Amino acid sequence: MIRFNNDYNHGAHASVLQALNQTNDTQYGGYGVDDWCDKAEKLILELAQCPQGKVYFFPGATQANFVTISALLGSCDSVICADTGHINCHECASIENTGHKIVALPHHDGKITADQIEGEVQAYYNSGEAEYLTRPSLVYISFTTEYGTLYTKAELTAISEVCRKYHMYLFVDGARMGYGLGADGNDLTLADFGRLADVFYIGGTKCGAFFGEALVLTDAGIDRRFKAHMKQFGAVLAKGWILGLQFYTLLHDGTYFAITKRADEYAVRIRQAFRQKGIEELVVSPTNQQFIILSRAQAQALESKYIFEAMGPVDDDHVCVRVCTSWSTKAEEVDQLVADILNL
Amino acid sequence: MIRFNNDYNHGAHASVLQALNQTNDTQYGGYGVDDWCDKAEKLILELAQCPQGKVYFFPGATQANFVTISALLGSCDSVICADTGHINCHECASIENTGHKIVALPHHDGKITADQIEGEVQAYYNSGEAEYLTRPSLVYISFTTEYGTLYTKAELTAISEVCRKYHMYLFVDGARMGYGLGADGNDLTLADFGRLADVFYIGGTKCGAFFGEALVLTDAGIDRRFKAHMKQFGAVLAKGWILGLQFYTLLHDGTYFAITKRADEYAVRIRQAFRQKGIEELVVSPTNQQFIILSRAQAQALESKYIFEAMGPVDDDHVCVRVCTSWSTKAEEVDQLVADILNL
Amino acid sequence: MIRFNNDYNHGAHASVLQALNQTNDTQYGGYGVDDWCDKAEKLILELAQCPQGKVYFFPGATQANFVTISALLGSCDSVICADTGHINCHECASIENTGHKIVALPHHDGKITADQIEGEVQAYYNSGEAEYLTRPSLVYISFTTEYGTLYTKAELTAISEVCRKYHMYLFVDGARMGYGLGADGNDLTLADFGRLADVFYIGGTKCGAFFGEALVLTDAGIDRRFKAHMKQFGAVLAKGWILGLQFYTLLHDGTYFAITKRADEYAVRIRQAFRQKGIEELVVSPTNQQFIILSRAQAQALESKYIFEAMGPVDDDHVCVRVCTSWSTKAEEVDQLVADILNL
Amino acid sequence: MIRFNNDYNHGAHASVLQALNQTNDTQYGGYGVDDWCDKAEKLILELAQCPQGKVYFFPGATQANFVTISALLGSCDSVICADTGHINCHECASIENTGHKIVALPHHDGKITADQIEGEVQAYYNSGEAEYLTRPSLVYISFTTEYGTLYTKAELTAISEVCRKYHMYLFVDGARMGYGLGADGNDLTLADFGRLADVFYIGGTKCGAFFGEALVLTDAGIDRRFKAHMKQFGAVLAKGWILGLQFYTLLHDGTYFAITKRADEYAVRIRQAFRQKGIEELVVSPTNQQFIILSRAQAQALESKYIFEAMGPVDDDHVCVRVCTSWSTKAEEVDQLVADILNL
Repeated sequence: MIRFNNDYNHGAHASVLQALNQTNDTQYGGYGVDDWCDKAEKLILELAQCPQGKVYFFPGATQANFVTISALLGSCDSVICADTGHINCHECASIENTGHKIVALPHHDGKITADQIEGEVQAYYNSGEAEYLTRPSLVYISFTTEYGTLYTKAELTAISEVCRKYHMYLFVDGARMGYGLGADGNDLTLADFGRLADVFYIGGTKCGAFFGEALVLTDAGIDRRFKAHMKQFGAVLAKGWILGLQFYTLLHDGTYFAITKRADEYAVRIRQAFRQKGIEELVVSPTNQQFIILSRAQAQALESKYIFEAMGPVDDDHVCVRVCTSWSTKAEEVDQLVADILNL
Repeated sequence: MIRFNNDYNHGAHASVLQALNQTNDTQYGGYGVDDWCDKAEKLILELAQCPQGKVYFFPGATQANFVTISALLGSCDSVICADTGHINCHECASIENTGHKIVALPHHDGKITADQIEGEVQAYYNSGEAEYLTRPSLVYISFTTEYGTLYTKAELTAISEVCRKYHMYLFVDGARMGYGLGADGNDLTLADFGRLADVFYIGGTKCGAFFGEALVLTDAGIDRRFKAHMKQFGAVLAKGWILGLQFYTLLHDGTYFAITKRADEYAVRIRQAFRQKGIEELVVSPTNQQFIILSRAQAQALESKYIFEAMGPVDDDHVCVRVCTSWSTKAEEVDQLVADILNL
Repeated sequence: MIRFNNDYNHGAHASVLQALNQTNDTQYGGYGVDDWCDKAEKLILELAQCPQGKVYFFPGATQANFVTISALLGSCDSVICADTGHINCHECASIENTGHKIVALPHHDGKITADQIEGEVQAYYNSGEAEYLTRPSLVYISFTTEYGTLYTKAELTAISEVCRKYHMYLFVDGARMGYGLGADGNDLTLADFGRLADVFYIGGTKCGAFFGEALVLTDAGIDRRFKAHMKQFGAVLAKGWILGLQFYTLLHDGTYFAITKRADEYAVRIRQAFRQKGIEELVVSPTNQQFIILSRAQAQALESKYIFEAMGPVDDDHVCVRVCTSWSTKAEEVDQLVADILNL
Repeated sequence: MIRFNNDYNHGAHASVLQALNQTNDTQYGGYGVDDWCDKAEKLILELAQCPQGKVYFFPGATQANFVTISALLGSCDSVICADTGHINCHECASIENTGHKIVALPHHDGKITADQIEGEVQAYYNSGEAEYLTRPSLVYISFTTEYGTLYTKAELTAISEVCRKYHMYLFVDGARMGYGLGADGNDLTLADFGRLADVFYIGGTKCGAFFGEALVLTDAGIDRRFKAHMKQFGAVLAKGWILGLQFYTLLHDGTYFAITKRADEYAVRIRQAFRQKGIEELVVSPTNQQFIILSRAQAQALESKYIFEAMGPVDDDHVCVRVCTSWSTKAEEVDQLVADILNL
């Protein structure tokens, strides 16, 4: 069986493992105070072109999401996101667990618009900031989204403008940042996120690292004892250099961008094979996640050799599966899947 | 400079790194559903002799502490621990952050007694369980303690009996479990913890792993959607097999116990050198942490070559430093330090 | 100006004030341990026919809602309610503030159905109780609803059955319980709530008391240090007898039921006047709240003499207003309003 | 039996009841937006000489404490108070329940000093604001204290200066404010609290009202959606005018100050009777609470006619009881108790 079910089924890119091997006999300071975290931070701030920013390394993405959001919000503040948002559907109410309401807006291909956001915020201000309402104080979006889709620079700019107009933070979940940046048609860069967002992160877990997410506060001014918030939720790794080291290794020579771009290309090849057979997608995605609508017979045939992620039935005869490539996907695995699709 | 300041300044034991190398091309299921977690759980439950138990792997110790405690407690329950307890002093109020009061009892060499605990609990019951009081529902102790000391089997048994008498959970923070088990004079085994505690963990971060703590619920019956609690706080690692693999590797052939026992022996050698020079300890510890009282001149001399952890002034002329060995400490580092101590 | 905007714009029914006058020179025990609370509890449990129950008196309804819900739920549990539910729209995220997600289902005239609830719960169980999902553990409904509508005995029975099937609590917000029980066509009694719900309350604030809600745990078995939960959120009134006294006074001779039934009748008279003029309601309500669709001219005309609650625009030319009678509404006020409606 | 056990065993001062009678037929706006709240706020800000302040009315003191503290603190902030503080001992961990650690300092007669506070805060800053420590951000004191004692103007000024030096809020729990202001030897005024504290409240429940506490933010600038915080915890009374009305009634003609001063005088008379018999106090208190050390025989004799609050055993033969007068205590009750003391 070959896994095409997710992008976190392999250890780490060879260069990461090599870096761990090479540094294993060196002593380091604890809790993220070390040279590798410093070097990785410097590099990331250069890539994002926000020298006034600050970088923190989290072990995992759920932590990066809820710790950051709870650190930035006051008690009566709420979060706006798409109803499909990862924080709304896949993190066991971690946001509500820290005391905040999520205002979930109907998504379009996994995305929300500046207009939707502004409508929601205006309802709050039109009430005269009524005491029985929470203030929408942060907008959470994902790049890439849960459907593998991308915000354009125009869309992100519009959202950023609404956020600034109403004093809301813009937070970009970048667990799949690499796959977004590398996609055909993408017009956003890390520097755009550094300019338009208040917080975003560069995913490691799904993009070549063993684990870890590099969170960027684009302006260190919003850093109100941020590390204490992380510590309070156990999100400061004792051997923090392991995180800095991985990010430096993946980013400094472009490996991060190359291996995710390749996964996008593999995904598009697979999609084209499906299309060639007249098999459609639920959503058109240019990135490593493809949501394919299969007949039950087709699904059964492919699932004898491949593991996909089941997304549920579409109608009586069809199901949707997520076919997901990864930085670790091999060309021969794609070749084999493409051949089997064409033979369906 | 040689670090004797803590036990988390090196990557991982060579066998762990080798295991990561060997498995790096294999695909695994996510979120702890994989063979390595299964094998490690089975092995740990055998070592702890509690086949009815359940094992969960946490990335870090602060997470293991607060996630577990908040999962086990109801809203009006409190935690009893030593005033020196890690959760009381070093985790940014992570327990209070989840809504629970810590009732801190005066420590004796880092420890608390069954009598102290019973006295505190009786105050609650003598009030008629007054609505303005929280119920003490969990006792938190550490093995080894913050001062490197150990509970004896008699002490642990007495605490366990008080806990069961008053329906309180007994939770043992085992971030330094290996150093405790390997200490000269220790009479406790993993099976004792499996029998006397409700929850305990076997520390990985400080005992040879890159990171990770193996938490044992000694009776799976207390597992009320435990993994959901973990997920809610972002404590379920996506690539969970990395944790299971590390623990299996360290434990299956006894490496875990050997490397921590060695560190204890190194620490005792260092202590003996200090004693030989008439330099005393703040607390008598048989494990890898030694709390040494140095004159300011002695401290300055040693700190030109070694990094210790400053514990603060003892009097106008003396300071206390933590001299900490580790699974990664080398014989020659100890030789050198001992020589320098004797030359003070 | 005459207020028809809500049902909490007057002090208390004359009998309540008289009771306060008569008892003002008597000494009582504090925090709800007194004869009046005992007498009121006994009376309420008789009315609800649940002798095995327990009654607690809350100062206010928001407190009754969030304190009770947070007392009954575990950390990873969520609440199901209508998207129009008071806890979802009007209490500043008090439920999320205690750490729980609200799963808001689309309402029909302010109500949700057993089928909707079962569908939502099945999604959870069909996932295999996935760790990334909260367990729906409590269903919150209101009687009367935010639109003044009523659940029928058949509907409530069906919801109760679903709740028991899936081990969920059924909680009925009865802030307007009197108006529901007294409505033309209502087929539910306090005994039905005592039998079908796990928790419900009899509203005082909106039904003749100065303030206070009488919460009934229909089976004292679910009372896990309930009063401690109340205390922790400051919901145990120091002079608790004031609450017991008010409820005993209003309930023991049927005043409670008479004054709310009268308000319902007034509301229906007003509605009929509107209908006579061809003016329609947003929702058909048999209780004291009427949601009337007025042209802007009609609204302006009436609002020169009466205060209604604005519900927002319906279309370019029409607005919806809540016309609300109360236990304190006088016949002549209704006469006057009816006359003015007919003269529109 | 005559109650001398607390100061909340009677309804309300006659003038309050009269005011409720007189206003019972009047319609008011809800949730504190009404003339009585406005008048009471204006009056209180005049008394406290802080025209730039803001007043909020809470139903109860526990609410006033935890809602205010949680509104003012960030997630990683802690509260400093005396170990005897009401929030530390009598409110079921309501502060921890909102996520904040209490740093409890050893009390002296119920009080803490500016030096103690500064010592604690310096430990935090000396750590370099370490991420594993919470920031002490608010100092909570009570006037009068749990032992009926008073801060002097010099003591309060010193504490206020430390608070401002380290950017901490100074919060004064004034549940028994009247008894403090009226005490023989007191040198503090409401204007002093208005000048030296950031937040304080004027207790109603224990000082002549049915219920309610008037909280003063001495500078409205710290009011960050304060009412939303209140609403979120159910602390905004629907019929808010009942609170404003009570405070206006008690304060506008000095009744509040007269009835509490009288209770202090009664308490001192009772204390003098005890002293005349050679019976001592645990703590010397000039206010309405007296902590008297009785032999078991003396206690038994008096408790056949009077209810005191048991404070626990002092030694094998003696117990401490709180003898508490109140605004509602009658001269003849005091006469009778004094006579019985002298006849012991």
